[in-house]
Amino acid sequence: MEKQSTRVDTAIQELVANLGERLSTVPSVCAQHGQDESFHKPHSPDAVAFVSSTEEVIEVVKICANHSVPIIPFGTGTSLEGHVAALSGGICVDLTGMNELLSINAADLDATVQAGVTRRQLNENLRHEGLFFPIDPGADASIGGMAATRASGTNAVRYGTMRENVLGLSAVMPDGRVIKTARRARKSSAGYDLTRLLVGSEGTLGIITEVTLRLYGVPESVTCAVCSFPTLQAAVDTVILTIQSGIPVARIELLDDAMIDATNRFSKLDNALAPTLFLEFHGTRTGTEEQAEMVQQIAYDHKGGEFRWASHAEDRNRLWRARHDAAYAAKALRPGCQMWPTDVCVPISRLAECISATKDDVDESFLMAPIVGHVGDGNFHLTFLVDPDCPKEIAEANRINERLIDRALLMDGTCTGEHGVGYGKVDFLVAEHGEGVNIMQAIKSAIDPQNIMNPGKVVRV
Amino acid sequence: MEKQSTRVDTAIQELVANLGERLSTVPSVCAQHGQDESFHKPHSPDAVAFVSSTEEVIEVVKICANHSVPIIPFGTGTSLEGHVAALSGGICVDLTGMNELLSINAADLDATVQAGVTRRQLNENLRHEGLFFPIDPGADASIGGMAATRASGTNAVRYGTMRENVLGLSAVMPDGRVIKTARRARKSSAGYDLTRLLVGSEGTLGIITEVTLRLYGVPESVTCAVCSFPTLQAAVDTVILTIQSGIPVARIELLDDAMIDATNRFSKLDNALAPTLFLEFHGTRTGTEEQAEMVQQIAYDHKGGEFRWASHAEDRNRLWRARHDAAYAAKALRPGCQMWPTDVCVPISRLAECISATKDDVDESFLMAPIVGHVGDGNFHLTFLVDPDCPKEIAEANRINERLIDRALLMDGTCTGEHGVGYGKVDFLVAEHGEGVNIMQAIKSAIDPQNIMNPGKVVRV
Repeated sequence: MEKQSTRVDTAIQELVANLGERLSTVPSVCAQHGQDESFHKPHSPDAVAFVSSTEEVIEVVKICANHSVPIIPFGTGTSLEGHVAALSGGICVDLTGMNELLSINAADLDATVQAGVTRRQLNENLRHEGLFFPIDPGADASIGGMAATRASGTNAVRYGTMRENVLGLSAVMPDGRVIKTARRARKSSAGYDLTRLLVGSEGTLGIITEVTLRLYGVPESVTCAVCSFPTLQAAVDTVILTIQSGIPVARIELLDDAMIDATNRFSKLDNALAPTLFLEFHGTRTGTEEQAEMVQQIAYDHKGGEFRWASHAEDRNRLWRARHDAAYAAKALRPGCQMWPTDVCVPISRLAECISATKDDVDESFLMAPIVGHVGDGNFHLTFLVDPDCPKEIAEANRINERLIDRALLMDGTCTGEHGVGYGKVDFLVAEHGEGVNIMQAIKSAIDPQNIMNPGKVVRV
Repeated sequence: MEKQSTRVDTAIQELVANLGERLSTVPSVCAQHGQDESFHKPHSPDAVAFVSSTEEVIEVVKICANHSVPIIPFGTGTSLEGHVAALSGGICVDLTGMNELLSINAADLDATVQAGVTRRQLNENLRHEGLFFPIDPGADASIGGMAATRASGTNAVRYGTMRENVLGLSAVMPDGRVIKTARRARKSSAGYDLTRLLVGSEGTLGIITEVTLRLYGVPESVTCAVCSFPTLQAAVDTVILTIQSGIPVARIELLDDAMIDATNRFSKLDNALAPTLFLEFHGTRTGTEEQAEMVQQIAYDHKGGEFRWASHAEDRNRLWRARHDAAYAAKALRPGCQMWPTDVCVPISRLAECISATKDDVDESFLMAPIVGHVGDGNFHLTFLVDPDCPKEIAEANRINERLIDRALLMDGTCTGEHGVGYGKVDFLVAEHGEGVNIMQAIKSAIDPQNIMNPGKVVRV
């Protein structure tokens, strides 16, 4: 076979013939597309194809397949484990131009969108229908990217993750064929679940071009509350009992004292410097009142402080400000640092123990690493604030990260609750799944025999 | 390669050496294991292996793999599309002996069970914990079989199907390797979703040996209601508006007038001969009252009759009697007949139209075929009552079934909402998925290159 550089050059010539100026080899454009929001080392693709239709995606894939050139799909570049890094070069397929809402079926509570539609764009278009799409990973990510990484976020505890909320999708497979994994029925027993196979496949099996999503009616009543606790254990025990009691909280988020300190400084707030829960309730007026009362009683039993409440949208935003600003606030704790976020998820009965042990690791370390968690799911994040040029700091972050993941796995948890594998957690995936990784590799090789779809991510081939 | 009969004989000799009397070649035992509750033609396996541990399953699979002998997993034999028929002979693996509850984690609301545990057995063991497992396909099926067929049933509208309620599973793969698809975290972005790939794979990719399930707290309040309607359209429109309003009904079932007639005769009831909804509400006392009020108002607006209510367990059972007895009642409409149940699922906005057109087909036919539906999901069943020896009747049932499935697909629905593909719907799967079936075949061939796992089901290789 020809050298890769020759093959890439040929592919680029053919792509230019198809896409004209929408095929870019400008170094800054390529660099921007080889980098996500993680700490992982970026790798520029050889070119970026700005596609505007499924037909163009097919064309790009066929050309790349003909020349065995890697293809890396790109949404908003907000992934966190190096998902978009072009580890072996190749062509990045930027899907942001495919941003049409194809259909909103209010009666069926579903919508079909192109992959480049972002979640805010979708929700702005749903508002006048009294509907919303709940999944909220923080960033204004693209729906295609959220599906590809099995994203979740703050209200997964109530509404599930992309796993539960993608009804079906269309994808261009590595040989240019298009599949539609499901129609719009709410449930189906018709064959292998290709929807769920592609959700979370991180661009390694095909390029997701269209997604059909479940929608929800905007609740009659939304109320928020914030409550601080004397200890991390007390806060987490409140969460555990809330979940075990089956109270359908819409969000239940934890910030540790370090993160509260960061947000107080950054957003000029005066929250008590203590582990704090941020809660949101969705339902009828009666329903949210009842839920709130039940949680308040549980918090009271765990020595939680006063509940601060808000129900109007502006007040809710003010109350939740600390949570919303957490990422920026963390970064501001150490000007010039780079953030390295990691995430695990454990059974909720082990959550207090897992967070406490992790907090001990951080307290004993010279590194800063505030904690924030979607604790209702047993999911939390540790964000290392590192100087990327200091090997000692990187080694220390690696050490604590490895201890965190080992701990989560020993507690019957997962090495990533929502960030995905990318190339940052390929080895941890092996630790978690063992023989299962061989089955993943067999699937990858069967569907992408040339290993051109986002190579080096999820599983090594 | 040797003839299959020789290879099977060799495999049986080796299996007897391992299992002794738990390897049976008794014709009646084999016949019973080649037949499910469907109308599809049974096919006896050459032998039945009554396994009692994962180690024995591994042993059986290795022996069969060595000799390229088909393997058909068997739970309770209650599937409905010929799933257990040994189309190419081979060894049936009866998992009913693997019926241990391995762990119940009340604090995490999950349980791990061996595949042969039935759902009633599980629920009996959960009762004293105040927990339950909601998925209820009607039959007292095994959890392994329910996972393998992606079962759902009456309360999927509230709690989801096996797709949403299996946290992870262990399976023996076609080469005898064991994989565990996930640990017990509520969510994970760690690699391809092997859990969802095996859920619904109908024994064609591996033998499920253990399943970890989500559990739920027994609701504080459970109330039931029954209401009849002047027309099918009015009943279904009530369902549609209930779902669109986001009212979290636990069950919402429809029986058409023919099915009500059948149940009145069979169970000596006096329900009005009209399309009737059976409802169940789960929640706090306040919550169920509020839900019931909202649905009652919607039903009233659609000219529904009086709501009959029950909240004590015995009264609820009495009120729901017609629904519980529906299958037996249908069969009794025509003594000596065989039932041929089929199922589709459509977006809820198309449900009234789909059921009405189907009902017209039945009314115009000489065949009897009552309708019962898990209508909250857009899912319903048609049960043909046929004389299996009358080609004219079979042809007529086939004709109406094909029209039903074409109609469901045209309405963006699926050829099976919950019964699965087995060998009865292999061709309809192609109609539904097109190119997607090629991807399913690629996965099947990659994981089971010898095509020994339940061959002839789901996809043809």
